[in-house]
Amino acid sequence: MNSVTVQAPGTVANLVCGFDVLGLCLDAPYDTMVIRLLDEKKVIIESADGYPLPTDPALNTAGAPLVEMLKEIEENIGFEVIIHKAIKPGSGIGSSAASAAGAVVGANVLLNNRFTKEDLVRFALFGEKVASGVKHADNIAPGIYGGITLIRSIFPLDIVAIPAPELFVTVVHPQIEVKTSDARQILRKEVLLKDAIKQWGNIAGLVAGFMKNDYDLIGRSLEDVIIEPVRSILIPGFADVKQRSVAAGALGGGISGSGPSIFMLSKDEETAHAVEAIMHDVYNGVGLDHHVYVTKVNQQGVRVLV
Amino acid sequence: MNSVTVQAPGTVANLVCGFDVLGLCLDAPYDTMVIRLLDEKKVIIESADGYPLPTDPALNTAGAPLVEMLKEIEENIGFEVIIHKAIKPGSGIGSSAASAAGAVVGANVLLNNRFTKEDLVRFALFGEKVASGVKHADNIAPGIYGGITLIRSIFPLDIVAIPAPELFVTVVHPQIEVKTSDARQILRKEVLLKDAIKQWGNIAGLVAGFMKNDYDLIGRSLEDVIIEPVRSILIPGFADVKQRSVAAGALGGGISGSGPSIFMLSKDEETAHAVEAIMHDVYNGVGLDHHVYVTKVNQQGVRVLV
Repeated sequence: MNSVTVQAPGTVANLVCGFDVLGLCLDAPYDTMVIRLLDEKKVIIESADGYPLPTDPALNTAGAPLVEMLKEIEENIGFEVIIHKAIKPGSGIGSSAASAAGAVVGANVLLNNRFTKEDLVRFALFGEKVASGVKHADNIAPGIYGGITLIRSIFPLDIVAIPAPELFVTVVHPQIEVKTSDARQILRKEVLLKDAIKQWGNIAGLVAGFMKNDYDLIGRSLEDVIIEPVRSILIPGFADVKQRSVAAGALGGGISGSGPSIFMLSKDEETAHAVEAIMHDVYNGVGLDHHVYVTKVNQQGVRVLV
Repeated sequence: MNSVTVQAPGTVANLVCGFDVLGLCLDAPYDTMVIRLLDEKKVIIESADGYPLPTDPALNTAGAPLVEMLKEIEENIGFEVIIHKAIKPGSGIGSSAASAAGAVVGANVLLNNRFTKEDLVRFALFGEKVASGVKHADNIAPGIYGGITLIRSIFPLDIVAIPAPELFVTVVHPQIEVKTSDARQILRKEVLLKDAIKQWGNIAGLVAGFMKNDYDLIGRSLEDVIIEPVRSILIPGFADVKQRSVAAGALGGGISGSGPSIFMLSKDEETAHAVEAIMHDVYNGVGLDHHVYVTKVNQQGVRVLV
């Protein structure tokens, strides 16, 4: 096989109380990427739809991971990647991670899966480094593993799949751009110990809630006393969306990644669509262009099309 | 029934990365307490063995919870409590919590279990308030529920039982006193966000490890980058005990509560006894009196003897 097409999905990082360590894989939206094997040691990145991408592979979120992968390959081969972007950069649903994860999963298929998923995360992290200056894996890991993942540690890499009951995710992307690097800069370097304690009580509750199939506990644990109070200021309509969604039966939710997207979890599809209607209502009310996605948790991660 | 005898066990709070939110119940040591029903609204506290206890019930860790319980009882009744202390105050294995938990569990038996376990925790917290000035439930909850408990929140009270595989606990109590209130004062009020992130990655990993029966993950997650580096300075021999125990096969461990006791978790009894030998060796080496307990996790909590 010399060519493969993959669907690289969006992901929700942080999951409210799991800043930098939890992530969840979406069914939609997803980028479509074609990866082709080349017979020389190089990486070529192309946009399928005229979207301006950095052409230097080392500076491209799909390219940098492949440059790293090639360092561990003896053969004289390379990759060409043609990207059809559907996930907008700066949306907060893992646009850069999708490109990185899709590239390495596709390339690995062409190599008869010689690398492990953990290897692929390790390569893909170089894409996140390019995008935000930080090797964070909370989008990369769910994109590659699927489902809900915990990144207990980055150095050394320690990824834990967290089983969970069926969950529906409603995500709204209001069309304003929040750069990950900006969203990081407004965070304080120090936090109150008492707030940190509340946060780790909540993340422990969230993991227990997922693994016990306890929707109420999931809902009670979806609370962020550290990041959300600071970052939500950057997102118009945030409080409205959250409050009305929970009132409509959603379990809870918050900022997706560093925003501006907002996600809400629901235990049934009907509630997820009620949340969708609320999101439309809020952003039509403030006159802001937006997209809403209603999806299940994607258990597979990047999909390989045959 | 007018009288009941209970065994109120020691507990390990914090469990390394779960400061103020996780706790585990031990089989030994335990206090033995006799609780008798009185026909007037009062609480009497007595020591069975001449151990000096505050006689004003409102100032006693077993008395204050019963005073609170009586406020929710219409009948003209009260309780007499005779305490045989085996868990030394200031040991870090939940001495005050054992008195509080034992008193309310025993009294509730005499009331035909009219209160829920959550009620009992709520009452028992007044004992911790007397002992340390803070209503912390990370010893109370495992003492009353048994097993490993998460206190996701105190206000409102939210206790989550965390299932876990079979674990053996080796606890050493070096005979120096560390007061909970002193151990709290040396902690910084603020922590670095990056340390807090590491900590909540670890507690999420620990809960997932318990619930997945994944001993390796439990071991990797037993890391505390916030409290242990500060508090372990107060405990002679700490680094030696920890390092040698892990080298001997223990999964990990750390300070029990606010110390000076140290606990180590093992997946089999043989390792737990190897750890016991190491603890004896370290404290014999520094010439410090000490007790070592090797026990399983107590799934029941306070035991009611018939």
